[in-house]
Amino acid sequence: MSATPATETTTEPDAGYTPTDRTVPTRSRDRARYDRETVHSILDQAYLCHLGFVRDGAPVVLPTLFGRVGETLYIHGSTGSRPLLAAGKADPGLPVCLTVTHLDGLVLARSAFHHSMNYRSVVVHGTAYEVTDPDERRMALDSLVDHVVPGRSADSRPANARELAATAVIRLDLDEVSAKLRTGGPNDDPEDLGLPFWSGVVPVAPAYGTPIPAADLTPGMTTPDYVTAL
Amino acid sequence: MSATPATETTTEPDAGYTPTDRTVPTRSRDRARYDRETVHSILDQAYLCHLGFVRDGAPVVLPTLFGRVGETLYIHGSTGSRPLLAAGKADPGLPVCLTVTHLDGLVLARSAFHHSMNYRSVVVHGTAYEVTDPDERRMALDSLVDHVVPGRSADSRPANARELAATAVIRLDLDEVSAKLRTGGPNDDPEDLGLPFWSGVVPVAPAYGTPIPAADLTPGMTTPDYVTAL
Repeated sequence: MSATPATETTTEPDAGYTPTDRTVPTRSRDRARYDRETVHSILDQAYLCHLGFVRDGAPVVLPTLFGRVGETLYIHGSTGSRPLLAAGKADPGLPVCLTVTHLDGLVLARSAFHHSMNYRSVVVHGTAYEVTDPDERRMALDSLVDHVVPGRSADSRPANARELAATAVIRLDLDEVSAKLRTGGPNDDPEDLGLPFWSGVVPVAPAYGTPIPAADLTPGMTTPDYVTAL
Repeated sequence: MSATPATETTTEPDAGYTPTDRTVPTRSRDRARYDRETVHSILDQAYLCHLGFVRDGAPVVLPTLFGRVGETLYIHGSTGSRPLLAAGKADPGLPVCLTVTHLDGLVLARSAFHHSMNYRSVVVHGTAYEVTDPDERRMALDSLVDHVVPGRSADSRPANARELAATAVIRLDLDEVSAKLRTGGPNDDPEDLGLPFWSGVVPVAPAYGTPIPAADLTPGMTTPDYVTAL
């Protein structure tokens, strides 16, 4: 669902991300993944991420949209928003942690202790830099729109000079990255298997509703295929 | 969907959270809410949160489950997990930011610039403390299970001494809190209203699939009402 990767070809196809102290979990290490295919897939199926940064020594976590172009993530926002301001002012950039999580199922075990979730998450550690190159800014903004609705950037009015001036774009390279995922049923202890409690998984997934045309829809417009295809 | 509030009665029913420098957004202030009803509603409809903390000066954001009891949020995990270890060691507690986000719709405007999301989010700033009181720990663990599947804690085996010893619980009081939400259709500029691009909202909501019984389901067990009711 991302824009066409621009830098993908410079990457060895099978080279995963190198694990670091920060990307090796302290527990459930068997759930960790470092291959690019898994990481990209989890990122590209997401609508939004949670972006963490440090402000006055304290953590801040904000939900925001993102786009991916190859091995780079882009985030945008008002030039007045806190993380974007901070990334622009920070030298050499703003340390961030960007996390994406898909919830896939509620895992009900016989024991309260073994209740869990099926999920797929990606955590990206790195430094965010403000993007100032006009061409990269336009590409980044297209990737943000297309990440949410593939094909939409080509079927809307591009940003004009005033809008571009009001928009800050920051980039975060995929370098220190890990995915973590849990699948399957509950893992009850052998001594609990006979307990009279139901056990299993309740699948969860985002579902799209019927598109709602704007009240001021331009006359004659019908719902595009790329919207009904969602 | 939360456990029965234990401390709710000590709160003035109409008293909202007091805005602070950290909880007043730098932009779109009309989308901010500070009333407890809105905040509790957003928290209680969520399955998981994104928890931010600072490690070695850098931000870390991890997805995790949470429970709510009145004006307190509970998070649990292995005693070996990083934020729980840090909260236990930190004196006087671990500064955290806990964020919950519901995505409600994709907002497609005629201009790329006015593309947006309908969402409801809650951001909680505060200090997390390790819970050591045995009764509060048990209540917190029940609230975590019931937050995901209301009624489930009473229909599963409670944690035993070994499991309790392996589980860390931290609490975060709802004090410095804000909600932020966007609803409605796209806000196109007047000069764009005649452009030949579809505009509108695509609703998004989590949907439950058919429950999948465990492969080793205890014979005779049928799917409970509180599961089919999801």
